[in-house]
Amino acid sequence: MTRPSDAIIAAAQRGAATMAQRDTPFIFNEWYVAAFSAEVGRDLLGRKLLGKNVLLFRTQEGRAVALDDRCAHRSYPLSAGTLEGDTVVCGYHGFRYDASGDCIQVPSMSVCPRAIGVRAYPIIERGLLLWIWMGDPAQADPGTIRDTSFMESDAWVCSSGYFNLQGNYVSLHENLMDLTHLSYVHAKSFGTPEYAQAPYVTSLNDGHYKVTRSVVPTLLPPVWGDPSGLSGVPTAARIATSEFLSPAFHQVGTSFYDSALPDDERRVCSIRTAHLPTPETNGSTHYFIIHGRDFALADASVTETMHERLFMAFREDVEALGKLERVLESTPPEELYEISVTSDGPGVAMRRYLFSRAKSESDQSQD
Amino acid sequence: MTRPSDAIIAAAQRGAATMAQRDTPFIFNEWYVAAFSAEVGRDLLGRKLLGKNVLLFRTQEGRAVALDDRCAHRSYPLSAGTLEGDTVVCGYHGFRYDASGDCIQVPSMSVCPRAIGVRAYPIIERGLLLWIWMGDPAQADPGTIRDTSFMESDAWVCSSGYFNLQGNYVSLHENLMDLTHLSYVHAKSFGTPEYAQAPYVTSLNDGHYKVTRSVVPTLLPPVWGDPSGLSGVPTAARIATSEFLSPAFHQVGTSFYDSALPDDERRVCSIRTAHLPTPETNGSTHYFIIHGRDFALADASVTETMHERLFMAFREDVEALGKLERVLESTPPEELYEISVTSDGPGVAMRRYLFSRAKSESDQSQD
Amino acid sequence: MTRPSDAIIAAAQRGAATMAQRDTPFIFNEWYVAAFSAEVGRDLLGRKLLGKNVLLFRTQEGRAVALDDRCAHRSYPLSAGTLEGDTVVCGYHGFRYDASGDCIQVPSMSVCPRAIGVRAYPIIERGLLLWIWMGDPAQADPGTIRDTSFMESDAWVCSSGYFNLQGNYVSLHENLMDLTHLSYVHAKSFGTPEYAQAPYVTSLNDGHYKVTRSVVPTLLPPVWGDPSGLSGVPTAARIATSEFLSPAFHQVGTSFYDSALPDDERRVCSIRTAHLPTPETNGSTHYFIIHGRDFALADASVTETMHERLFMAFREDVEALGKLERVLESTPPEELYEISVTSDGPGVAMRRYLFSRAKSESDQSQD
Repeated sequence: MTRPSDAIIAAAQRGAATMAQRDTPFIFNEWYVAAFSAEVGRDLLGRKLLGKNVLLFRTQEGRAVALDDRCAHRSYPLSAGTLEGDTVVCGYHGFRYDASGDCIQVPSMSVCPRAIGVRAYPIIERGLLLWIWMGDPAQADPGTIRDTSFMESDAWVCSSGYFNLQGNYVSLHENLMDLTHLSYVHAKSFGTPEYAQAPYVTSLNDGHYKVTRSVVPTLLPPVWGDPSGLSGVPTAARIATSEFLSPAFHQVGTSFYDSALPDDERRVCSIRTAHLPTPETNGSTHYFIIHGRDFALADASVTETMHERLFMAFREDVEALGKLERVLESTPPEELYEISVTSDGPGVAMRRYLFSRAKSESDQSQD
Repeated sequence: MTRPSDAIIAAAQRGAATMAQRDTPFIFNEWYVAAFSAEVGRDLLGRKLLGKNVLLFRTQEGRAVALDDRCAHRSYPLSAGTLEGDTVVCGYHGFRYDASGDCIQVPSMSVCPRAIGVRAYPIIERGLLLWIWMGDPAQADPGTIRDTSFMESDAWVCSSGYFNLQGNYVSLHENLMDLTHLSYVHAKSFGTPEYAQAPYVTSLNDGHYKVTRSVVPTLLPPVWGDPSGLSGVPTAARIATSEFLSPAFHQVGTSFYDSALPDDERRVCSIRTAHLPTPETNGSTHYFIIHGRDFALADASVTETMHERLFMAFREDVEALGKLERVLESTPPEELYEISVTSDGPGVAMRRYLFSRAKSESDQSQD
Repeated sequence: MTRPSDAIIAAAQRGAATMAQRDTPFIFNEWYVAAFSAEVGRDLLGRKLLGKNVLLFRTQEGRAVALDDRCAHRSYPLSAGTLEGDTVVCGYHGFRYDASGDCIQVPSMSVCPRAIGVRAYPIIERGLLLWIWMGDPAQADPGTIRDTSFMESDAWVCSSGYFNLQGNYVSLHENLMDLTHLSYVHAKSFGTPEYAQAPYVTSLNDGHYKVTRSVVPTLLPPVWGDPSGLSGVPTAARIATSEFLSPAFHQVGTSFYDSALPDDERRVCSIRTAHLPTPETNGSTHYFIIHGRDFALADASVTETMHERLFMAFREDVEALGKLERVLESTPPEELYEISVTSDGPGVAMRRYLFSRAKSESDQSQD
């Protein structure tokens, strides 16, 4: 038998028409990670973000600056120029821009013409991260940047990593919302069959999608059991939450404790991972990751072991999403369909949200 | 003088408008070679055929299976998954498909939803070859697969080869219909000037195009003369036929004998080559070849010598058609024209046939 | 502040709408350099010019020939064939063309059909250069080829070079019209800040754009000062002219002399560079260069030093224009704008001229 029927495919395609996918326009009115704070300094750094070429650098005082990476005069990349004090000098004709994007000197003219400039993007530093706003500047409210204070807290030890994912950011978000892939993509790292079938509860609010999965009682694998002191404890609990917080931020948290103890005697150990995707193009993504734990803080070997283990798993996702992208980009739209199942509920809700955000921006810009 | 005139070019372009070329849609209602039988086993093999990603494998009993190489759930390539028994498990979320393409397990669900599946393609094994039907399954009649029984016959010794031709399959077919290129493309291998000018008879029926070229008397080159015992015989006959049998099959046969002997005393030696093109993309072709002879069967050195000699010549065609493709793909359609001559008759008839087959399918699918 | 305003950008885009840029159609009714004379001989040379594949070779008598590099029969590249006497034999089916592009032999036919042929382009040899006309042959007047007699004169010593510029030819022309980039692109070679600010006079006639820049008095750098005998002379004059002569020819000349001497006692030393861009594609250019001087003629070491120094600078332009092209090709047209300043006047006038030439041809071909 050849499946599925044309009717099934048509229904799947109708359903997908309001779900974000690789060709959905980017959402600009949002804070995205432009770079790790440590990446940006006194060298000019050019980086493509949301399909646009952006120049990043710091002023002499250390303030981060983001400008369009294209001279307003003849389109030469400013990142190929030089940084002099707090100004950027174009490498072609020497047009000089200040940190607000205003052109303040045209070498061939005694008086600099007014109204030459390049776009400056609001950029905010929060601990390890630089957040950029590439949409309507009037709507750029730093108060909407999600909380990342655990990264700087003494109660946590963190490590970070980056992948240039050769896949679209929507697929990455859906991958993160979904725990049923663990047993397959991560069969060799930390997937276990019980995980795919574990019960879960979802909380699907507009723009905030959360899946909580409880595995109680369970036996922890050594990577978590050893540093948390729960190795060999048959009554361990493993409570995982996976939260879409914004198009630029997905947080995964897991808590471990001995479920045999009463609530007030429990010592809860937590790990937390901030997954921070910033679209580069419609088929590639800057994938920033910061991982932390709140136990065994002084033991550097735990940091190293956990980092290795986790980033091996993240790399598995990156490779799988790359293979997926190759299929998506080479399949004619009319032949493409996705059939969703119950466990896709949170991912589908999230993708509908991304689609509606993109559509809303697109409608506004056409007003 | 600058030639040809606009009128000549316009006429040539009008004539070409009903001849298949690189951008003509593929013909789907046809049996094509998907792979040599020996290529497909218990490893998952992904291969692009007629522009579509296809998964090939064998069941435990050895039956060949062809499925769409894209999970119906989230488009992950099934060829990146695993084969368990007679089922394919997707490497992303573990959706399990049977050999008919039906999804029989979704790990996150206790009951597998109905109506999830991927397309299964009819696939038939005939000796050394696996034939796939990618068009309307209702029309898939194994009886229309062309006869290849010589490949398995004790009366023949065969060898096989494959090229990933970086050119379109229409150009390859036309190359095979045409013997006037031998003296040029194969000047260094087995072309001789007399061949280009040898008389020929054609038989052009709808879907079956045959050119027969007789060179009698002639002196055979050593590669044919030695094993056939006709070396040095000045009255040798060399009768070559080139037959288009289907969009997926072109057969070339040559017979040698001593024309000085009466019919009933002649010992006829024959060689036969099945040229089996399967489009990969509009600019690339899986070019399967099986070559056989019905003489000197026990002499393995003849097999080796003939294989080397022939495949060197086939490689010359592959390289020439690659150069041709680079011109075709880089020339704007409005500037392209082809002026045909008498000897192109069979090729032109064949190309008109391919065009009408493609157009007929396209008309049907729009009904 | 984020700049520039939408109104400024819209005005800039309106202004640019009549200026040639990378996507403006090529101008065909013009003589372009097809090759250095020394490049073309008795080997078949295929080269893409103005987006078309052209075959170049010489007859036995040494006359240069330019034909379409595509057989009229089945589009095989003629440059992959062979040159026999004054005829080109296609490497596929042996169609033979004479130097006028007429097909004079089809091997499979006893009588060659008439009216088969490929386009022949007018091509004229002038000293070191071969000039090709790819437009309307009726308009091909060799009298409009610009004067390059200095290249063959005993009064000059010349050297030549070539770059395959990965940028469009319009950007190269604008780069050549403009001397304000010297201090930036050539900061490490021969740019000096005073050059960017030096006064200049322009002469902007339809199709002839000239900028003259006088730096008097000045101290010459050793590269010019030593061979001209003006090293250390504080009253040296340096008069540079930059002239757009045609879409295919931009000439830069510089004269040096001691401004303290009366006119009739001055010994004027001159250098002259012919910049000869021929579009290859809309994003790449054959950049031919011939540089000469009329002093220190016998000193070969001066030739070597000047060549090294100058071509290092030209390479800087080539690299800068390549970076610029990467921005232009990756920026959506609606986001692209260029804000011009006073010193861009000659370049803008030249680009409007190129645009009007291209538009005029396009209008004609649609008649």
